[in-house]
Amino acid sequence: MTRTDVNEYGEFGLIEHLTRDFPLRQPSTLRGVGDDAAVVLNGPLATVVSTDMLVEGIHFDLAYTPLKHLGYKSVVVNLSDICAMNAIPRQITVSIALSNRFSVEALDELYDGIRTACRHYGVDLVGGDTTSSPRGLIISVTAIGAVEPDRLVYRSGARAGDLICITGDLGGAYLGLQLLEREKRIWQENPDVQPEFDNQQYIIGRQLKPEARTDMIEAFRKADLQPTAMIDISDGLASEIFHICKQSRVGALIEESGVPIHPDSQMQALHFKLDPITCALSGGEDYELLFTIDPKDVDKVKYLPDIYIAGEILDAKDGVKLNTKGGNLHELKAQGWKHF
Amino acid sequence: MTRTDVNEYGEFGLIEHLTRDFPLRQPSTLRGVGDDAAVVLNGPLATVVSTDMLVEGIHFDLAYTPLKHLGYKSVVVNLSDICAMNAIPRQITVSIALSNRFSVEALDELYDGIRTACRHYGVDLVGGDTTSSPRGLIISVTAIGAVEPDRLVYRSGARAGDLICITGDLGGAYLGLQLLEREKRIWQENPDVQPEFDNQQYIIGRQLKPEARTDMIEAFRKADLQPTAMIDISDGLASEIFHICKQSRVGALIEESGVPIHPDSQMQALHFKLDPITCALSGGEDYELLFTIDPKDVDKVKYLPDIYIAGEILDAKDGVKLNTKGGNLHELKAQGWKHF
Repeated sequence: MTRTDVNEYGEFGLIEHLTRDFPLRQPSTLRGVGDDAAVVLNGPLATVVSTDMLVEGIHFDLAYTPLKHLGYKSVVVNLSDICAMNAIPRQITVSIALSNRFSVEALDELYDGIRTACRHYGVDLVGGDTTSSPRGLIISVTAIGAVEPDRLVYRSGARAGDLICITGDLGGAYLGLQLLEREKRIWQENPDVQPEFDNQQYIIGRQLKPEARTDMIEAFRKADLQPTAMIDISDGLASEIFHICKQSRVGALIEESGVPIHPDSQMQALHFKLDPITCALSGGEDYELLFTIDPKDVDKVKYLPDIYIAGEILDAKDGVKLNTKGGNLHELKAQGWKHF
Repeated sequence: MTRTDVNEYGEFGLIEHLTRDFPLRQPSTLRGVGDDAAVVLNGPLATVVSTDMLVEGIHFDLAYTPLKHLGYKSVVVNLSDICAMNAIPRQITVSIALSNRFSVEALDELYDGIRTACRHYGVDLVGGDTTSSPRGLIISVTAIGAVEPDRLVYRSGARAGDLICITGDLGGAYLGLQLLEREKRIWQENPDVQPEFDNQQYIIGRQLKPEARTDMIEAFRKADLQPTAMIDISDGLASEIFHICKQSRVGALIEESGVPIHPDSQMQALHFKLDPITCALSGGEDYELLFTIDPKDVDKVKYLPDIYIAGEILDAKDGVKLNTKGGNLHELKAQGWKHF
C-alpha cells in the first residue's frame, strides 16, 4: 500500500484532495467548502447547531477502530444531537488535527467514512479546517439542522404524567467496546492470537458503526407525534434521564422491564458477569433517542416500530428511580463520562 | 493562587461552570448552551458558518500566550471568516480538549477571554463540547453569522479592472510573533533575564490580541459598498490574493507602495533584517480584510478610514505580480502555513 506524506499536498492541496468528492445535495446549501465560511439558507425554518470533539486515546482507539468507521461515527454522533432537537440534519463541517504519523491514504479512509455518512443521511459537508497536531488525531464536527420552530423539542418540556420512550436498544455499544478492549489486551500479550468475534457482530457494530435515528424523526412527523422532551443517549440512559429531569424540573420512574436490551447484549453482559440493565443505564454510545410524550399520544407511539415505553415522568419531589424486575425501587445517580 | 482540579467538577459541572456567565444578546438565538443543539432563527437571512481549530504547539505557545488572550483570539479568528463573507457574526460554539495539567482556574482565564470577545462583538456562546486530551490544549470554534443573501461576498467575484483593497495594516502579527519567540529563547537560556518589549506593544498586540473587522462590514453597509470578492488575511497577503485569483479566475497586480505597513512593523522588520513587504506578504495572522471593488465604487472607499487601495485585478493570463517600490515586477507565489 502506498504511503503519501501529507506534506506532499500542502495545506490547501490536502483540503482540496479530501473534500473533492462531496457533492452538495441540500437545496439550502448556498455555498459549501472553499470560501471563508459556508452559507445556508433555511427560509422560515429554525437552524439547529451542534458540535462534538473526538480525541484519540479518549474517545477512540485506533488499535481496533478502522478509520472509515471512525469517520462515519464522528458524523453520526453529531447528527444524533440534531435528531434530539426533532430537527433534520442538513450540513456538517469537519475539522481535523493530526500528527505526521498519518498518511494521506489514512486520511482518505477517514473521509471515506465521512462521505458514506454524508450520503446515507443526505447531509452536505460544507466546511472545516485541517491542521497538524503534535500527537494523535482530533476530529471536531459541527452539524447544522433545520426544523419548523413549532416542532422543536427541548430537554425542558417533560411534564409529570408523560410517558418515557426509548428507541432501538441500549447497552450494546458499551458491550462491543468491552469486547474490543478484551481482544486488544489478548492481542497485546500475544500478537499471533486472532480476535474471536463469532456471533458478536451486532454489539461490535453498535460500537464501531452507530446510526443516528433520523428515521425516527421522520416517523414522528408522519405520525404527527410531538415529543414533549427529547435527548440522545450518548452517555447512558441514567445520565440522559437526569438531564431531562433537571431541565424539566421533574422526577422519573424507569421500569427495568421496559428498557430495551438486545438478546446479543444480554448474552454478552452475562458472559462478562455484568448486569444487562447496568450496561443500558451507564454504558453510553448507543445514540438512541430518549423522549417523553403526552399520555394522550400513546396510540401514535404504539404503531411505530422500534419504540419502547420505559417509564413515566413524576413530580420533582419523587426523584429519579428504577423499578427493577424484582420489584425493588433504586435511586438512580447522574453520571457523565469521566474522561479527566 | 488556587488550583482546582477539573475532576472536582465532572464533565457536566465543568461545562455549567465555564458557560455560566454568557448572557444571550442576539434576538436570533432561540436556545443557547444546555440542550443537544443550539437553535438559531435567522428569518429571511442567509446563515454563514465557519470553523477553525487551534492546537497547542502548532498555533499557540503557552510560554508567551496568556490564556485570556488565547480565548479572545480563538473567537476572533472565526469572526474574521464571517466578516470575509460580508456577514455579521452572531453566535459561536466552543469545543475544547485539554489535558489534566490544566486547572479550572486556567480554564476560567481562557473563558474570560472568550467572554470578553463575545461581549465586544455582541456574539452569543450557544454550545460546545468539553473533553480531555492525552496532551495539550485544542480549541475548536464554530462561528455563525447572518447576512441578506444579496449582500454575500464570495472569493470568486473579482473581475479584471477591479481595485484591490486592504484594511488596517499587515505584517505586524508576524513580527510580534518573532519578537515573542526571540524573548522565549533568551528566557530559556537564562530565566533571570526579563523580556524587553519597550515600544513594541503594537506588534505584540497584533499577535496576541487581533481583532475581526466587523467595523468594516458595518462601514461597507453605511457606505452602500458591495465588494466584488473578499477574504480575511490569516495566511499573509500573497496567499490570500492567490485564493481570490484562483476562485475568480483572474490575475492581480499588487503595488508595494499601496500595501499598508505600520511604522512599528517597519522598524521591527528592519531590526530583524527582514524586508517589511515580505512580512506583509507572507506573515499571516493579521486578520485584516482583502477585498476587491468595482472601480466605479472608488469614491465610496476613499472616504472610509483605514482602507488602502493596493492594486488592480488583471486577466488570468497576466498572473499574480508585485510591483516593487523600485519599479521591478515580481511573480508572487501561493503559500499556506506549512504545519506538517
